[in-house]
Amino acid sequence: MIRFNNDYNRNAHPEILKALQDTAAEAYGGYGIDEWCDAAKEAIHEYLDCPEAAIHFLVGGTQANYLAIEAMLDRPYYSVIAADSGHICVHESGAIEHTGHKIHQLKAEAGKITASQIEEEARYYAENALVEHITHPRAVYISQPTEFGTCYSLEELKAISDVCDRYDMYLYIDGARLGYGLAASDATLADIAELSDMFYIGGTKCGFLMGEALVITNPALDFGIRNFMKLNGALLAKGWLLGLQYHVMFKDGLYFEITEKAVRLAMRIKDAFNAAGIKCFLDSPTNQQFFLMTKEQQEKLAEEFVFEYIDPFDDEYDIIRFCTSWSTTEEEVEKLCEAVHMGI
Amino acid sequence: MIRFNNDYNRNAHPEILKALQDTAAEAYGGYGIDEWCDAAKEAIHEYLDCPEAAIHFLVGGTQANYLAIEAMLDRPYYSVIAADSGHICVHESGAIEHTGHKIHQLKAEAGKITASQIEEEARYYAENALVEHITHPRAVYISQPTEFGTCYSLEELKAISDVCDRYDMYLYIDGARLGYGLAASDATLADIAELSDMFYIGGTKCGFLMGEALVITNPALDFGIRNFMKLNGALLAKGWLLGLQYHVMFKDGLYFEITEKAVRLAMRIKDAFNAAGIKCFLDSPTNQQFFLMTKEQQEKLAEEFVFEYIDPFDDEYDIIRFCTSWSTTEEEVEKLCEAVHMGI
Amino acid sequence: MIRFNNDYNRNAHPEILKALQDTAAEAYGGYGIDEWCDAAKEAIHEYLDCPEAAIHFLVGGTQANYLAIEAMLDRPYYSVIAADSGHICVHESGAIEHTGHKIHQLKAEAGKITASQIEEEARYYAENALVEHITHPRAVYISQPTEFGTCYSLEELKAISDVCDRYDMYLYIDGARLGYGLAASDATLADIAELSDMFYIGGTKCGFLMGEALVITNPALDFGIRNFMKLNGALLAKGWLLGLQYHVMFKDGLYFEITEKAVRLAMRIKDAFNAAGIKCFLDSPTNQQFFLMTKEQQEKLAEEFVFEYIDPFDDEYDIIRFCTSWSTTEEEVEKLCEAVHMGI
Amino acid sequence: MIRFNNDYNRNAHPEILKALQDTAAEAYGGYGIDEWCDAAKEAIHEYLDCPEAAIHFLVGGTQANYLAIEAMLDRPYYSVIAADSGHICVHESGAIEHTGHKIHQLKAEAGKITASQIEEEARYYAENALVEHITHPRAVYISQPTEFGTCYSLEELKAISDVCDRYDMYLYIDGARLGYGLAASDATLADIAELSDMFYIGGTKCGFLMGEALVITNPALDFGIRNFMKLNGALLAKGWLLGLQYHVMFKDGLYFEITEKAVRLAMRIKDAFNAAGIKCFLDSPTNQQFFLMTKEQQEKLAEEFVFEYIDPFDDEYDIIRFCTSWSTTEEEVEKLCEAVHMGI
Repeated sequence: MIRFNNDYNRNAHPEILKALQDTAAEAYGGYGIDEWCDAAKEAIHEYLDCPEAAIHFLVGGTQANYLAIEAMLDRPYYSVIAADSGHICVHESGAIEHTGHKIHQLKAEAGKITASQIEEEARYYAENALVEHITHPRAVYISQPTEFGTCYSLEELKAISDVCDRYDMYLYIDGARLGYGLAASDATLADIAELSDMFYIGGTKCGFLMGEALVITNPALDFGIRNFMKLNGALLAKGWLLGLQYHVMFKDGLYFEITEKAVRLAMRIKDAFNAAGIKCFLDSPTNQQFFLMTKEQQEKLAEEFVFEYIDPFDDEYDIIRFCTSWSTTEEEVEKLCEAVHMGI
Repeated sequence: MIRFNNDYNRNAHPEILKALQDTAAEAYGGYGIDEWCDAAKEAIHEYLDCPEAAIHFLVGGTQANYLAIEAMLDRPYYSVIAADSGHICVHESGAIEHTGHKIHQLKAEAGKITASQIEEEARYYAENALVEHITHPRAVYISQPTEFGTCYSLEELKAISDVCDRYDMYLYIDGARLGYGLAASDATLADIAELSDMFYIGGTKCGFLMGEALVITNPALDFGIRNFMKLNGALLAKGWLLGLQYHVMFKDGLYFEITEKAVRLAMRIKDAFNAAGIKCFLDSPTNQQFFLMTKEQQEKLAEEFVFEYIDPFDDEYDIIRFCTSWSTTEEEVEKLCEAVHMGI
Repeated sequence: MIRFNNDYNRNAHPEILKALQDTAAEAYGGYGIDEWCDAAKEAIHEYLDCPEAAIHFLVGGTQANYLAIEAMLDRPYYSVIAADSGHICVHESGAIEHTGHKIHQLKAEAGKITASQIEEEARYYAENALVEHITHPRAVYISQPTEFGTCYSLEELKAISDVCDRYDMYLYIDGARLGYGLAASDATLADIAELSDMFYIGGTKCGFLMGEALVITNPALDFGIRNFMKLNGALLAKGWLLGLQYHVMFKDGLYFEITEKAVRLAMRIKDAFNAAGIKCFLDSPTNQQFFLMTKEQQEKLAEEFVFEYIDPFDDEYDIIRFCTSWSTTEEEVEKLCEAVHMGI
Repeated sequence: MIRFNNDYNRNAHPEILKALQDTAAEAYGGYGIDEWCDAAKEAIHEYLDCPEAAIHFLVGGTQANYLAIEAMLDRPYYSVIAADSGHICVHESGAIEHTGHKIHQLKAEAGKITASQIEEEARYYAENALVEHITHPRAVYISQPTEFGTCYSLEELKAISDVCDRYDMYLYIDGARLGYGLAASDATLADIAELSDMFYIGGTKCGFLMGEALVITNPALDFGIRNFMKLNGALLAKGWLLGLQYHVMFKDGLYFEITEKAVRLAMRIKDAFNAAGIKCFLDSPTNQQFFLMTKEQQEKLAEEFVFEYIDPFDDEYDIIRFCTSWSTTEEEVEKLCEAVHMGI
């Protein structure tokens, strides 16, 4: 069976396993105070163009999201604005609310919300800034790429960042799959760093064993963040394990290389499906592709390939996800394209 | 100036003040363990037809709402379904999220949500009952009457209660203005008690100094509720003060009498406004009336009357609220109707 | 039966009931924005000598304590230092921990902790200021008078305030019975205001129906406090009810008058008990007196008087509390002293 | 330099690294639903003699502790009893309080508390079971071995478990270093499982990359625990990584083998130090040894060895920790013993 069901079903990239072996005899400081973490931060900084940014290594995306949002919302009545399809709204079991804060959900289109939607929401609260009976949005959460694989363009990010500045809100970007987004959008890592206050560079879904690098570009938000981490069980004793992986991935640009390749393979899949008359649910430029497929088509493909059922679309079609990742090979994609081409 | 701006701008009903004077020399047990609380509970029970119901006296509506919901959602990943116009969604500064729980907001019409809306939401979660990545609705919150003065009919309440039963969710009813709702709906206090698991009988907006009677008809939910109250600063040292007021209001039905009168007066206002060509924003059968008025109309009436601006409606009209309460007199209403009739 | 069991078993002072009657026809703004609250604040300010202090009216002591402490501990890893006999440690059902914060409990003597005890604790944390594995004390909580009726002297308060300043901690004073403390200590209300960052002037146990005036002398701590209140269900709709009572009590010094009298009567009781050979558990200069009494003595007195059993002391004696309050009369005290004098 | 400073300063045991390499080509289900997790649970169950036990794999000890305690304390006013030297009291940045619960700290001796201490505390609360003003202990937390390396004997554990049963409290055992404790105490893993309601088998400090296996022997406590995990960011996407490690360590008893060896080496160190006249701070039978050493002795040893300064003991001596671990070799210990023997 060839797996396209998600981007975290395999071990880590071979370079990471090799680094683990190579360092088997080393000893390290605990809790992320070690040479590998230092080296990894330096390697990441090469791409940030933001010397004042602080970097902290975390284990998972939900952890990164709620920690960051709890840190930004430093009064209990502060809230965060997000797309209603955002990961924090629908797939984190209420982790944000568990920190005590409300999410203002905006109706997303293809996973995205617009600067003007955000502004409309923010304006109401700004006009009622002194009202004690309502929550007050203090941050905006977006995902790049979104949960549906779509990306914000640099221009869109600038517009959102601008609204945030004007309404005194922080901008936080969930980068669980940031590598794939960087390969598909005109916004670079340096742009992301410049336009946001906090974001994370996802590792788990981009070839790591696990790991997310939280980047805090707004120095005021870095205060006490390691205490937050400890308090939430997010300060890994063997923190070097995260630093080592980020070093492997960023010292020579491997992170960008493998995510770019995954995106290229995903585009080939999209083309093959479209050519065979299978429509996209939406137009994703990244490693996640969502197709509209009949039960019959699914059954046929399921003989050789693993993919993910998402939701029913209508009486005839379901929404089906195909993912590429660091481990997807040209051969695997070739086989899938051929199968689709042969008729399913 | 004659005040129609809200239903809590005046002192308490004279009978309550009299009772306070009459009992000035008495001594009481603390924290709600006293004779007046006992007597008040007995008086309320006369209307409940629910011997197993427990009653606790609280100070305010927000307090009642978050305590009740925190008690019902006894796992951190449980959530509550509510109308998006519900008080807990828009006017309690995020108190529910502050307890750590998510609100699933359903699009309300005239302040109400329907059984089928609730069922549609609940069904999705029931089908995904074993999924750890999502919250799980465990309670439904509705207001009777709603924040827009509308009421659920007995049939509607039964349908909602039925959905709750089928999907293993508690039904909680916010009765901040319950008196006015009882006067306007065919659902009695006994119906409310039968169909819900918890609700409160609002005092603050119905002629009390302050006070809300939380009624827990589902005995399982009563466990430890006084500890919850203490923990949240909601166990009044001089709890007899609440009991005394509820006794005054329920021993001879005064609560029903004054809210019925307020509703009757509100209907007269509605008729007068409508007769004068001023349209209702929506059709409210209770003490809150929402009209569409021009700036000019508002200015003219504002010379003699106090009312509340709610929101803009369109370029021409604003939504304006007029409230009656226990203290509204026939004469005050007469003057308002006359003013409106004379042309504003 | 004559009641000495606590200081909240009676209705409010007659002047308060009278004011309620006198204002029965008035109308007010909601949520503490009204003329009575303004007038009350002005009256209290006369005693504070602290023009920058903000005052907010709350309903109960537990509510005041956890709100204040939550506001001071604005990072989740901040903690508060307190006497292990402090109300927040033993009688508020974990309300402080419910806000997410740890209390560092110091061993109290007669309800009090010393500046040097606090300093010793604070020093450890100051020396480990950069350690993420521990909580960091950011506030000190003391009660004036303490739960055992004892008082801090002005000198003691200055020493504690000084430690707080040096270790960058806020000082919060629980004044549930502050009136009695002011009558017994050389520290005035202006001293309290000068030396602390937040404190409250207790009403419930000093003759009010209910009410606590939270005084925030450190302007930075006032930010968003009304939102905190709303969020916690602590913003009373009819806030004028609290303002009115504080106005009655502070406009002509009635608050000081009645608490002084209660303390004077308590001293008479202490003298009478001591003269009769009944020892104090500790030397309290305020309205709460704790005596060591045999079961036999208790039974005899219980025929005519109500008092409170606290704890066993040893095999022979129990600790028994006698309280005076605004409503205690000279005659009642006379009868008690006589009964004790006659031999019990 | 030879490192004895802690037991988490090295990579993972070679067998774990080998397994990672061996499985590089495999694909897995996400979030702990995979074959390695299944196999690991089966392997652990071989030692538990508790078929009804559920096992969940977590990333760190603080995470395990607060998750378990939050799950046991399912009412906000429930609290947990612990030794005042317990990890949750002093080294987790207030994580337990962050979940909203109070810890009742009992004075520990050499890291341990006794059944009778626990009973005394529990009895007070049992006698006041209906009092709403206090928290109510619902769980007891102990560490095996303790933070000072000491162990509870089987008899002591039975006595504590018995008190818990009698007072309706859960027993939770923090097993961050459980392997070392099993090597030094007469209580087996099956005993631990029988006597507690929840505990975890520590991996991070016992040769893993990271990982803690939470064992829930009381089925009622397993309800919704994966939702708790997700909500707290503790559901690792590549959960197989934890399962794989536990499988390596438990399939043939490697876990026991390496921790036993580490304990044996620690005993050799203790003997050598004692023989050289260096006293123990306390008598630890496990891999952590605490010695009283002068500055001069420390400086001399620091030329070749890394160890950890804990606290000052008196004017002359400091408390110094030496740890062994899976990676400690006979040669390293030999060198240390020789150095000590030669005089330091």
